[in-house]
Amino acid sequence: MSPKALDYESLNENVKKVQYAVRGELYLRASELQKEGKKIIFTNVGNPHALGQKPLTFPRQVVALCQAPFLLDDPNVGLFFPADAIAKAKHYLSLTSGGLGAYSDSRGLPGVRKEVAEFIERRDGYPSDPELIFLTDGASKGVMQILNTIIRGAGDGVLVPVPQYPLYSAAISLFGGSLVPYYLEETANWGLDINDLRQSVAEARSKGITVRAMVIINPGNPTGQCLSESNLREILRYCYQENLALLGDEVYQQNIYQDERPFVSARKVLMGMGPPISKEVQLVSFHTVSKGYWGECGQRGGYFEMTNIPPKTVDEIYKVASVSLSPNVPAQIFMGLMVNPPKPGDISYEQFVRESKGIIESLRRRARMMTDGFNSCTNVVCNFTEGAMYSFPQIRLPPKAIEAAKRAGKVPDVFYCLKLLEATGISTVPGSGFGQKEGVFHLRTTILPAEEDMPEIMTSFKKFNDEFMEQYEDHRGYSRM
Amino acid sequence: MSPKALDYESLNENVKKVQYAVRGELYLRASELQKEGKKIIFTNVGNPHALGQKPLTFPRQVVALCQAPFLLDDPNVGLFFPADAIAKAKHYLSLTSGGLGAYSDSRGLPGVRKEVAEFIERRDGYPSDPELIFLTDGASKGVMQILNTIIRGAGDGVLVPVPQYPLYSAAISLFGGSLVPYYLEETANWGLDINDLRQSVAEARSKGITVRAMVIINPGNPTGQCLSESNLREILRYCYQENLALLGDEVYQQNIYQDERPFVSARKVLMGMGPPISKEVQLVSFHTVSKGYWGECGQRGGYFEMTNIPPKTVDEIYKVASVSLSPNVPAQIFMGLMVNPPKPGDISYEQFVRESKGIIESLRRRARMMTDGFNSCTNVVCNFTEGAMYSFPQIRLPPKAIEAAKRAGKVPDVFYCLKLLEATGISTVPGSGFGQKEGVFHLRTTILPAEEDMPEIMTSFKKFNDEFMEQYEDHRGYSRM
Ligand SMILES: Cc1ncc(COP(=O)(O)O)c(C=O)c1O
Ligand SMILES: Cc1ncc(COP(=O)(O)O)c(C=O)c1O
Repeated sequence: MSPKALDYESLNENVKKVQYAVRGELYLRASELQKEGKKIIFTNVGNPHALGQKPLTFPRQVVALCQAPFLLDDPNVGLFFPADAIAKAKHYLSLTSGGLGAYSDSRGLPGVRKEVAEFIERRDGYPSDPELIFLTDGASKGVMQILNTIIRGAGDGVLVPVPQYPLYSAAISLFGGSLVPYYLEETANWGLDINDLRQSVAEARSKGITVRAMVIINPGNPTGQCLSESNLREILRYCYQENLALLGDEVYQQNIYQDERPFVSARKVLMGMGPPISKEVQLVSFHTVSKGYWGECGQRGGYFEMTNIPPKTVDEIYKVASVSLSPNVPAQIFMGLMVNPPKPGDISYEQFVRESKGIIESLRRRARMMTDGFNSCTNVVCNFTEGAMYSFPQIRLPPKAIEAAKRAGKVPDVFYCLKLLEATGISTVPGSGFGQKEGVFHLRTTILPAEEDMPEIMTSFKKFNDEFMEQYEDHRGYSRM
Repeated sequence: MSPKALDYESLNENVKKVQYAVRGELYLRASELQKEGKKIIFTNVGNPHALGQKPLTFPRQVVALCQAPFLLDDPNVGLFFPADAIAKAKHYLSLTSGGLGAYSDSRGLPGVRKEVAEFIERRDGYPSDPELIFLTDGASKGVMQILNTIIRGAGDGVLVPVPQYPLYSAAISLFGGSLVPYYLEETANWGLDINDLRQSVAEARSKGITVRAMVIINPGNPTGQCLSESNLREILRYCYQENLALLGDEVYQQNIYQDERPFVSARKVLMGMGPPISKEVQLVSFHTVSKGYWGECGQRGGYFEMTNIPPKTVDEIYKVASVSLSPNVPAQIFMGLMVNPPKPGDISYEQFVRESKGIIESLRRRARMMTDGFNSCTNVVCNFTEGAMYSFPQIRLPPKAIEAAKRAGKVPDVFYCLKLLEATGISTVPGSGFGQKEGVFHLRTTILPAEEDMPEIMTSFKKFNDEFMEQYEDHRGYSRM
């Protein structure tokens, strides 16, 4: 009998090609170990609440009230909820057509999209049009939709930084396009060199690929770098010259841990360049409620904003968004609150600032602790995490470790990360899941474990690493066991 | 200069091919009219809360508490929330790894998937495996994922009922497959005739199409029919013979308005057929929190359950689900509550039953009022809505109306529905958006307007329709104006 539609042999090949390391072999093994009772520190995914980060109080109050609108009629509601949360809940409910239980417009609630546009305008100093902002179930869904709109087949290439967040490689595989890698330079603090970019494009073109779009992740995941304004200008000029759409993944724009290179949006730089570039380069920018000091990953809220995208294309994107009816409404309200948080003078302002500052300042200290910790280990070098939520140390594996990995049938960094997991419970992602230069090995961890646990984690990491390095060190003629 | 990546000319052709009438021309025109101040009755989409249906109290209490877990520590929480809601909130929070703000496993929370499996077991009398249940952001996303897994290219066909809910045609276009229509028989209360099915498959095969899967919608949208057990048995036997995977869209399983044909799940019938069929036919069943007496559309919660799907395929589906990280967590809790609602003896039981019964009984009355209303109109015939949320009357357009439509450059049913909208504010979807036999015209409305508004709506419909029919009646030699 011929294979059935859902037998492995007969599945869509693009589905099979997808790779997604963040929840790959390491994650599955960690889940197994956890089931067996081992204490696992999940640093494989930027999921702050899973590692104990508390949600900000004010937005949770507002959304809880929106979920339970009957509380708003209760004369005692003021005992439990501050007046500004009550007012905000009424405000957001008034923007819906039937509360949180009604499908919204497929682009998201018009009133929230207006608040997003106002936020962008305040941030960048240039007006933004709510009709060009679509709310999404997390940034992931938006990225996937835009890539699906662009990619027509294997002849279409998308420039993706390497190392990259594997959403991009996965989505490009799923939609049957070609990933065109450009390498970030580790020795230049993971900076982007336009000459490298040119070379990648030339190489892709020589293979017959039409390079159509370029992805930047700023601040970077897994690399943590913040792009400078002048770097962004170079990129935009390059996109203009080469007729590339730019996808700007800016989900970590609130996660900045140094003062030299504050976040600047691609849109602001684009607008500042003036015509023709500012009128020509097609840009889609992505944001989320999952990151920053919000960390509301499980709510699945995001948006994308389109610049210089023709109306007919916007209509097509709207149409496809309609097929799944609407993004989830509670997360739309989180997005509204994120772009329009309590203001000085509001009852909840002080608490909101205290909570959010506390989170960012602690992340800044943790970024430092991790970088320093890694750099104190044998054969480990690590750039400082300028932004985002990750540390991406290079692990210089001795030849014997690489041989041992081969014997075990593992990619060397996977081999190292599995050993680390078994020894310490620290669940990381091997660098090969993000792409890295040939023969160079990394791992990615988040900087999210609780600050008070950090010293212990780094000690346990160092102990494992230094023993591992000793075991496989070349000068030793015999195994340690 | 060559077109840019996001210019209309250069978009993915499959994106352009997508059609989605539920939010198409009629909806856009209705939105415009609403902006201009006209009162619109949105019956274009099954969105109960948008038409005034109140959410069930208990689940909203539970999810509000989960959003604001600090309330659980408040000694006065019992003043606002019943003890069983508090207990349930604690229960669901304990199933998460960090509350609603943490990404869950990409398949959904294991604890909720277990509750879904128990629900299915209670409903059908056969055990269900939580590992084969994936939670999704609404049923739409699940359907899209499964179709994307199956469809490899234009040579792959998927059988879809006509008329159908356009999610199916849209997703098949988007993924580049071929829709193979099979017609439901209006004169047999929209029943499914296996001989018709055979003919559709033969025809598709003669065109070189490999028919790989079949969709059933039970209860039907837009047609409202409930499939009988014997009909389901025939369908499953056919799938077995023809090596088709079956996609069972059962989102309306709680929406039943007659007693002769209660809902029976495809899975129950399959299991009851015994081997080899029960072991061979690949089935994926879909459900949602958007329908039933819940109507929590905006929350975006759903699940799919896989039967006879090999583990390697399940792994692939898991991998692709991982790319967008996790379904939204609040809606997962709604799903848990839907499959595991208050029980006799619980504090909230009586209220829950009162509210849910009230909704279903009113829907039943409204289904009757609509059918009767349509059947009282000139040139309109309408089957009774056995289930789901829609009425799908046939509109027998006189030749002169068809000519007038042509002159206006409109499809005849679009022409009629636009006139209806302008005259009455009733926003429907033309039958052509769902597919209908050549030369036959319908419209779809939901049965969701408030019961007390129903007489007025039907009167206003009748007035418009009967005047329209008179205007275009053949025996009149002159126009009414
Ligand atoms: C660079 C980057 N982009 C996008 C996302 C997606 O986030 P979400 O879908 O939760 O908004 C992530 C998540 O980790 C990320 O790291
Ligand atoms: C037949 C059918 N299937 C699936 C859906 C999708 O519903 P949701 O994505 O809200 O679960 C709908 C919505 O109207 C429907 O009518």
